[in-house]
Amino acid sequence: MQKFSFTLKTTDGNARRGEVQTAHGAIQTPAFMPVGTCATVKAMKNDDVKKSGAEIILGNTYHLMLRPGADLIAELGGLHQFMNWDKPILTDSGGFQVMSLAGIRKITDNGAEFSSHIDGTKYLLTPEYSMEIQHKLGSDITMIFDECIAYPASEEDARKAMLRSLAWAKRSKDAFIKRDGYGLFGIVQGVVYENLRKESALGLIDIGFDGYAIGGLAVGEGQDLMFQTLDFTTPFLPKDKPRYLMGVGKPADIIGAVARGVDMFDCVIPTRSGRNGQAFVKGGTINIKNAQYKNDVKPLEENCSCTACKDHSRAYLHHLVKSNEILGAMLMTEHNIFYYQNLMKEIRTAIEAKRFDKMNPDEY
Amino acid sequence: MQKFSFTLKTTDGNARRGEVQTAHGAIQTPAFMPVGTCATVKAMKNDDVKKSGAEIILGNTYHLMLRPGADLIAELGGLHQFMNWDKPILTDSGGFQVMSLAGIRKITDNGAEFSSHIDGTKYLLTPEYSMEIQHKLGSDITMIFDECIAYPASEEDARKAMLRSLAWAKRSKDAFIKRDGYGLFGIVQGVVYENLRKESALGLIDIGFDGYAIGGLAVGEGQDLMFQTLDFTTPFLPKDKPRYLMGVGKPADIIGAVARGVDMFDCVIPTRSGRNGQAFVKGGTINIKNAQYKNDVKPLEENCSCTACKDHSRAYLHHLVKSNEILGAMLMTEHNIFYYQNLMKEIRTAIEAKRFDKMNPDEY
Repeated sequence: MQKFSFTLKTTDGNARRGEVQTAHGAIQTPAFMPVGTCATVKAMKNDDVKKSGAEIILGNTYHLMLRPGADLIAELGGLHQFMNWDKPILTDSGGFQVMSLAGIRKITDNGAEFSSHIDGTKYLLTPEYSMEIQHKLGSDITMIFDECIAYPASEEDARKAMLRSLAWAKRSKDAFIKRDGYGLFGIVQGVVYENLRKESALGLIDIGFDGYAIGGLAVGEGQDLMFQTLDFTTPFLPKDKPRYLMGVGKPADIIGAVARGVDMFDCVIPTRSGRNGQAFVKGGTINIKNAQYKNDVKPLEENCSCTACKDHSRAYLHHLVKSNEILGAMLMTEHNIFYYQNLMKEIRTAIEAKRFDKMNPDEY
Repeated sequence: MQKFSFTLKTTDGNARRGEVQTAHGAIQTPAFMPVGTCATVKAMKNDDVKKSGAEIILGNTYHLMLRPGADLIAELGGLHQFMNWDKPILTDSGGFQVMSLAGIRKITDNGAEFSSHIDGTKYLLTPEYSMEIQHKLGSDITMIFDECIAYPASEEDARKAMLRSLAWAKRSKDAFIKRDGYGLFGIVQGVVYENLRKESALGLIDIGFDGYAIGGLAVGEGQDLMFQTLDFTTPFLPKDKPRYLMGVGKPADIIGAVARGVDMFDCVIPTRSGRNGQAFVKGGTINIKNAQYKNDVKPLEENCSCTACKDHSRAYLHHLVKSNEILGAMLMTEHNIFYYQNLMKEIRTAIEAKRFDKMNPDEY
C-alpha cells in the first residue's frame, strides 16, 4: 500500500504546487475539496463530481455519526464503498459542527456534549471517539478533534480553546490507528492572535502530524484579517507537509491563501450557492433568478464543459431556478463545482509556469 | 420534412406494435412518455432521460403558459430548444390542469377562466388559445382542448362535458396550424358510459385527427372500470392511428391497456414516486425508507443499468432518501424511469414475438 505522503513539486513565491498520496490515490495541490456532508455532494452524481476534476471530497463526522451512523457505514465497508466514491476522502472531526449545528452543548476538558439537530439524541464527542468514528468511516485524511470558538473571542478565551485543542490533538494522535496511506492532520487554532497561532503551530509540530490545517478562520473576521493571520501562521508550518485552510472560501480567498502557502481548501459555497441560484463566473457571480437572464440565450460561461453550460442557456436555468425545479439545483451546483475545479487547475498551471502572481483575484 | 404518421407493424391479440413518425424522429409503440411538466423531467438530466430509452416526453401547456410563458419559449426557439430536448414532445392542452390545479374557475362554452396557482393572475383558456400556445411551444403532438369533469359524474353531466369537448375538438382542429411532422390528437371523453364514449369517438373521427387519446380515466374509477371502459372504447377507434391513454399509470395498468389496444401512455407516477422514495421493481414496489433497507447491500434491481442500480446499494439510497438529500430524489427517479422504459421494451418485444399474453401484470 502507498504510504501517505506529500511531495512539494515546485513553488512560485510562497505558492506551492504539490501532490498528496493517499490510500485511494493522489491529490494534486492546490486542491479544492467539494463538501459531501452526508455522504453525497449535494445534488450531484459521483460521476459528475469526478468529471469536474475533483480528486478528493470531504465528509462530516458530525453528520455521519448521527445518520446513518459510523457502525453501519463500517458494516457496509466504509464511507468509500457506502457512497461508491473510490478517490480520497477527508473527514472533519465534528468539532466545528458541534458548535454551529448541534443543540444544547457542554464543553469540558473531556469532550463536547451535544444534542443531535435531527432527533435530539444526546452524544458525547471526545478526541478518542472522533478518531474511532473517522477510522470506521475509513477516511484517507482524518482531522484531529478540536474546540472551535465563536468569533470574535478575547485573547484569554482564544488561548483556553487553543490549549484545550492542543491537548485534544495529542489525545487524537494517541487514539489514531495508523495505517499505510491514511493520514492525520493537526489543526492550528488561536483566532487572530499571532502568539497563539505560533504556540498552537509549534505545539502541533511537536506532536507530529501528516498535515497541518488552519482552523477558526472564515468565521466572520473578514478577508483582511484572515490573510494577516495566514501571513503570520504559515511560516511556522513545516514545508514538507500539506497545509489545509478549513472552510475557505470564495475564489479570491483561495487565490490569496495559495499566495500565502496554503495547499488545500473546502467550502460549501459552490454547492450551497448553486442550490440558491448563484453561479460563479469569471469576474464575479451572477444570480440566475434576476429578470435580466429570463431571455438570455448565452450559457452561464463560454468554454465551460459542465452540463449547464454545454447543454443549456441562462434563460433555461433562470426558468428552472425560479420554478424551484430540482434540475435547477443540479445544474447550478455542477457548474459551480466545475468552476472551482477549473480555478484550481489554473492555479496549479500558473504556479508551474511561475506566473501565479499574474492571477488577479478580481477576475475570478 | 417527415410527415406525421403511424405505422402498425404487427399485432398480438388486441396489443399493437407500432411506430409514430414526427418532426423530431420516431417513437416505437407501445411507448411511455416521462412527464416533463415545467420543461424538465423532474430531477433528471436530459441525457439520462435519453439513456433510459425514452423517445418522447410530455410537457404541460398549463404550467408553461404560466411560467415562463409561451411567447418567451417561442422567442427562444420553442420548447425543444429551450430545454435542449431534440426528440419528440407531446403537450397536453391544459384542460386537465385547469380543473385539478388552478384557482377559481368558470367554464363556459367559450373556454375556461381560471387563476394561476402561482400568482393568482386570471386567464381565459379557449381551444384557440390552447392551440396557439402549443404551436408556439412547437409540440410534435398537440392535444385538443377538452373539458375534464370530476369523477364520479352523472350521465347527464358527463354528456354535457363530452359534447362541449366535441365542440372544442372541432374548434381545436380549425385553429391548429398544420405543419409536416406535427400532429393533433383528439380526446375521447364520456366518463364510464359506453354510449357517450361511442358518441365521442365517432364525433372525433368525423372531425379527423392524427391520433386519438382516451381521457377522463385514471381519475378514481379503479382499474376494473378503466379496463371495461377501454374494452368498449378502443373498438370504435381507427386501427391506423395511434391511441393514447392519458395519465396512466402503474405497470399493471399499462400492460392491461396495451392488451386492450392502447399505444401511448404518460404518468407522473414514476417521477413522483421516485421523489417520495418509492421504487418500482419486478413484482411490486419498495419503499426505500423502510428500516429493512438500511443495511441492504443489494441494488434496487439486479441487471438494471440506471445509476442507482449500477453504482449504489439500497442501503445508500435508504440513507439519502431518509436524509432528504437531492441525490436520493435523482437516483430514485432515474431508476423508475429506467424501469418504465424497460417495461415498454419488454412489452414491444413480447408483441413482436406473439407472446404478449404471457406477460403477467402481477410480475411488474
